[in-house]
Amino acid sequence: MSLLVVGSVALDSVETPFGTADEVVGGSGTFFAASASHYTPVRLVGVVGSDYPVERLQPLAARGVDLSGLETASGESFRWRGRYRHDLNVAETLETRLGVFAGFEPKIPASFRESKYVFLANIHPALQHAVLDQVSRPALVACDTMNLWIETQRNELVRLLGRVDLITLNDGEARQLTGSPNLLKAARWILDQGPKYVIIKKGEHGALMFTGASVFFAPAYPLEQIFDPTGAGDSFAGGFMGWVAKTDDVSERNFRRAVVYGSAMGSFAVERFSIDRLLEVGQDDIAARVKDFHALVSLDGAPQA
Amino acid sequence: MSLLVVGSVALDSVETPFGTADEVVGGSGTFFAASASHYTPVRLVGVVGSDYPVERLQPLAARGVDLSGLETASGESFRWRGRYRHDLNVAETLETRLGVFAGFEPKIPASFRESKYVFLANIHPALQHAVLDQVSRPALVACDTMNLWIETQRNELVRLLGRVDLITLNDGEARQLTGSPNLLKAARWILDQGPKYVIIKKGEHGALMFTGASVFFAPAYPLEQIFDPTGAGDSFAGGFMGWVAKTDDVSERNFRRAVVYGSAMGSFAVERFSIDRLLEVGQDDIAARVKDFHALVSLDGAPQA
Repeated sequence: MSLLVVGSVALDSVETPFGTADEVVGGSGTFFAASASHYTPVRLVGVVGSDYPVERLQPLAARGVDLSGLETASGESFRWRGRYRHDLNVAETLETRLGVFAGFEPKIPASFRESKYVFLANIHPALQHAVLDQVSRPALVACDTMNLWIETQRNELVRLLGRVDLITLNDGEARQLTGSPNLLKAARWILDQGPKYVIIKKGEHGALMFTGASVFFAPAYPLEQIFDPTGAGDSFAGGFMGWVAKTDDVSERNFRRAVVYGSAMGSFAVERFSIDRLLEVGQDDIAARVKDFHALVSLDGAPQA
Repeated sequence: MSLLVVGSVALDSVETPFGTADEVVGGSGTFFAASASHYTPVRLVGVVGSDYPVERLQPLAARGVDLSGLETASGESFRWRGRYRHDLNVAETLETRLGVFAGFEPKIPASFRESKYVFLANIHPALQHAVLDQVSRPALVACDTMNLWIETQRNELVRLLGRVDLITLNDGEARQLTGSPNLLKAARWILDQGPKYVIIKKGEHGALMFTGASVFFAPAYPLEQIFDPTGAGDSFAGGFMGWVAKTDDVSERNFRRAVVYGSAMGSFAVERFSIDRLLEVGQDDIAARVKDFHALVSLDGAPQA
């Protein structure tokens, strides 16, 4: 089923304890699309500057990502430079240059407006609203956000919660948004603003999905090396939404499976820089990892059915 | 089946964001025994000073904890005073007064020496060795430890690893002991020293059990309020060993179940000060919480068999 994502397409420069990458393909929309494309065709809406090496997005197009909604504006592309030290859960931003992203006004192509599944990746809440104004009754709208918008656009963000079915955010953001150090209370507060589902991502500590009546937990995959955590959350969201769109099933039962597929994609994303590993893995790799995830929590050491 | 624990019996004074407790029953042996007594009779070996309010241990005796190995020495009891701030995963020790615990030489009563299951709670590694010298071929020997012994008694501790089947320790201790920030690598290093099982406790982030060939993960129970984290790890170990001793089954499959029982007991321990909640809960409470744990990771929202 059709899956639309609106997010950033950037150039990332990253330092980790294991190496450095300079001006590699990055951005929330990019990671999401690379991840979701393993499950379903993806429609990507975003903006790049005239300096963007668009040929590097060709592997995405080859995987079924429709780039016709990717606008090229005159000016510099969005660039992010960051560093991870030994605590790979914490990104230290060294530089953010918004470039053409600062003036971005998402225009959803007519052919994308009927998308059944919509993901509003981490962009300004006003732009997330603008996307919703342009699409017609999706079966599921999900969004992500970040600390910057919680600090500076809180009202717009809280109003957005009334327009989405699901939000993914990390534990620090959940605490910051709600003022509650306790994640269960934080999730309840967010649910009270509108979404039926809240997914709190805890990095290497896994992910929790809350509804008004239940909690589901998926561990993170125990990796011997987290090479570069950049994009893990967007890749999680891509796996989640990709699975939901592929199966076209918005039941809580299916969402639990989707959380595991999301966790699997997040675990691949961090194994190499940029979207490299996401482009490399195939269906067999994904199936094997999902099986490992199930075995990880199984009382019998075997996958759940 | 018979379960022996050797550990501390202390008086704790605790400050948390939710209240304070003054000179309440504490200690690794005490929490372990209170927890394990829900599954099997427990033999407790430890020492208290002549000032210890032993009548406060009567509820343990009433629950089947054999206190005949609890020595009373002349002098002051072991006292710990600590504080938790908003990060309830981190205890700040304000004062430790070892008292009679400083000169403790565990003497295992003759009637305890054939115990089939043995837990060496967090005490000096030399004392843990001394206990093993006094018992005859248990079916399972497990131990715990802490940062102090890793820093000051590293050689004795590593030598102990060659004499135990299982070790429980928290994530910070695993990293400190092995010098590896990665828990998978840390677990492998520990397994190489001898134990067949390593359980790494991550507080509110759950627990991981490693063997040479597998990893099992149990989440922590999402509690609305962690009232006082003191004793959670010892209560986990008590639930784990209590379940193993009750079922008298040392298979990996049964250990996975035991991790869930341990997690359940840890989640109760933190709901009130001291061992209060552990003494309060009954079999129905435990069964309900274990069911909740299974539902938390179930793809269908229902317990695993």
